[in-house]
Amino acid sequence: LLSKLPHIGTTIFTVMSKLATDHHAINLSQGFPGFDCYPYLQDLVSEYMRKGYNQYAPMSGVPILKNRLAEKTENLYDVSFDPETEITIVSGATEAIFAAVTAVVRRGDEVILLEPAYDSYAPAIELNGGVPVYVSLNLPDFSVDWQKVKDAITDKTRLIMINTPHNPCGYVWTQNDLDILAELIEDEDIYLISDEVYEHITFDNRNHLPLFTHPVLKEKTFTCGSFGKTFHITGWKIGYCLAPKKLSTEFRKIHQFLTFSTSTPMQYALADFMKEPSRYLFLNEFYQKKRDLFCEGLKQTPFRFSPTQGSFFQVVEYGHLSSEKDFDLAVRLTKEIGVASIPISAFYHDQKDHKLLRFCFAKDDEVLEEALGQLSKAT
Amino acid sequence: LLSKLPHIGTTIFTVMSKLATDHHAINLSQGFPGFDCYPYLQDLVSEYMRKGYNQYAPMSGVPILKNRLAEKTENLYDVSFDPETEITIVSGATEAIFAAVTAVVRRGDEVILLEPAYDSYAPAIELNGGVPVYVSLNLPDFSVDWQKVKDAITDKTRLIMINTPHNPCGYVWTQNDLDILAELIEDEDIYLISDEVYEHITFDNRNHLPLFTHPVLKEKTFTCGSFGKTFHITGWKIGYCLAPKKLSTEFRKIHQFLTFSTSTPMQYALADFMKEPSRYLFLNEFYQKKRDLFCEGLKQTPFRFSPTQGSFFQVVEYGHLSSEKDFDLAVRLTKEIGVASIPISAFYHDQKDHKLLRFCFAKDDEVLEEALGQLSKAT
Ligand SMILES: CSCCC(=O)C(=O)O
Ligand SMILES: CSCCC(=O)C(=O)O
Repeated sequence: LLSKLPHIGTTIFTVMSKLATDHHAINLSQGFPGFDCYPYLQDLVSEYMRKGYNQYAPMSGVPILKNRLAEKTENLYDVSFDPETEITIVSGATEAIFAAVTAVVRRGDEVILLEPAYDSYAPAIELNGGVPVYVSLNLPDFSVDWQKVKDAITDKTRLIMINTPHNPCGYVWTQNDLDILAELIEDEDIYLISDEVYEHITFDNRNHLPLFTHPVLKEKTFTCGSFGKTFHITGWKIGYCLAPKKLSTEFRKIHQFLTFSTSTPMQYALADFMKEPSRYLFLNEFYQKKRDLFCEGLKQTPFRFSPTQGSFFQVVEYGHLSSEKDFDLAVRLTKEIGVASIPISAFYHDQKDHKLLRFCFAKDDEVLEEALGQLSKAT
Repeated sequence: LLSKLPHIGTTIFTVMSKLATDHHAINLSQGFPGFDCYPYLQDLVSEYMRKGYNQYAPMSGVPILKNRLAEKTENLYDVSFDPETEITIVSGATEAIFAAVTAVVRRGDEVILLEPAYDSYAPAIELNGGVPVYVSLNLPDFSVDWQKVKDAITDKTRLIMINTPHNPCGYVWTQNDLDILAELIEDEDIYLISDEVYEHITFDNRNHLPLFTHPVLKEKTFTCGSFGKTFHITGWKIGYCLAPKKLSTEFRKIHQFLTFSTSTPMQYALADFMKEPSRYLFLNEFYQKKRDLFCEGLKQTPFRFSPTQGSFFQVVEYGHLSSEKDFDLAVRLTKEIGVASIPISAFYHDQKDHKLLRFCFAKDDEVLEEALGQLSKAT
């Protein structure tokens, strides 16, 4: 069987997590919480299973969960989505991204990716016959170079993929970013996928600005969200897509043949759990403390960094220390000092090496402190 | 946004289930059990959630669940699969089918579908730029017309999609079918996807023969299975794919970008639950009783039928009664006598109407009896 993705191996997340396990290292590589979800959320799942909610959910999701998301976007951002036709529950944000790409991209279409870019974007585009066009984010702050984006747009551009707060770099889009993007694409036949899985994790009084808060962008955007990142349940694999009716119609045509529907008892449990907005609004403060703790500790290490603006990732620079490749350093740190990270080159199509590593700080404070102690010995 | 699936609406399962709900009809349309899964299986999920198994599972699945599947194929069929490299857990058989099609099919490849065919096959092929080539199964028994399959094979044929026990028609493949298929494709660059989600539901002492029991076929086959159909948990959306290492490698490359991984607590729960093979081996007998009850009752209705060989579906014929289209009759029976079914024309690409309806008998006996009482009034 000839490979359709000959250049693709196992994801870096699997590679580094396995290395961490093999070497009993602290795993700050793959992005998942080191602490548990609320027992009450688990109890709700148990309750719905016991009540017999164990057969297929409706293809587009359980109505009360879709309603809850509609209420949330209404309350937080003053933007309306119709739960019946514009909100779809899927098996994780990865599915949402794959389905949205598949709904839009045809053979020969160009898709602009801002690098570093999450590793599932390009394969999804390629499997649909599309051509990724890479635009580098500015260093060191990972802001968008709008002139470069403008230059990258051609007649064939059909889609731009956005990620805010940004993984791996934490950059949070500003109103200015939204305005410029809107101006750029307003009259073009260009769609947007906005990966906003870290929407509730921004720092230093920054506000997350969903693309859909801009009326021009709203009409063209598939917004991909994750319950896993918000409720510490990455292993439950539940996410969603918000998009105007015409876009959601096409999205659902894909979703219904990709996975058809998503865990029934977990959808009902999440709907109940989300009744109380404090259960997701606390996240900002919760993670602000962890980011501050982690950044304070990083000062005692040889790494350079600016505190991340959002997400639960902190990028650090080590170019002044060594010319070692970032992948090699990530492997060496895992083996020698027992802390696993992700090399940022994994998020560049050509493995461009800027001497950057990503650490996940969604861990218990003691774990972070232990990791920081080890990192202070890094050479 | 131009549709990539312009000819596709909402699946017939969603359409008929909604109609059933709207008219308070007995829903024998969409294929899901009307009864619950074992409380013990639910308890296991609760237990694993409580123990903190709530973050990402390994991309290819939880090792002990993959081991359990390897033991099962070894014990039941005397065939080995390596859990590390040849077994992948995914978010339902629908994902398994989509990922396998995506792993194989390139632009212009021809894929042979035996009609009537499950409704997700053709869109998966088309989204990958493939061309479905339709071969009709024989009426009235839905056996395979091998001459027609032979005639349909060309230089461009890359894949044949098999489904045994067959949905919607119940036909169970024989050793003769396997042997002929093996002879046909042995020296060709042709792969197979075998949808075997009803593997544990066959009747009248028929045995399910997985394609992988034939050594020639094993090397070329992606076998798609479902925990949902076997353990009465269609709403949990967990399935799997068995395939030789080379094929599984490509399958996993797709899966990792489609959904990445599947519910962690449910995977662990299923691994524990499957320790006891009687928990799936009882299904044959369990459904044999329901099929017999349903077929006995059907004799009191105006429909014609032969008892289904496998799956939890029974097809009936009504051509001697009326020339009404099957879709129209399915709608009318839902509204007038309160029993919803699936028109078989939905499984033909050109909606060919053979005056056939499909009933799902995976329901409590009292529900089946009530439905039969109503169906006896059908005109
Ligand atoms: C799907 S595993 C990777 C999780 C993640 O989002 C990350 O580590 O960036
Ligand atoms: C995925 S909903 C359809 C369930 C099913 O397999 C069927 O009814 O045939």
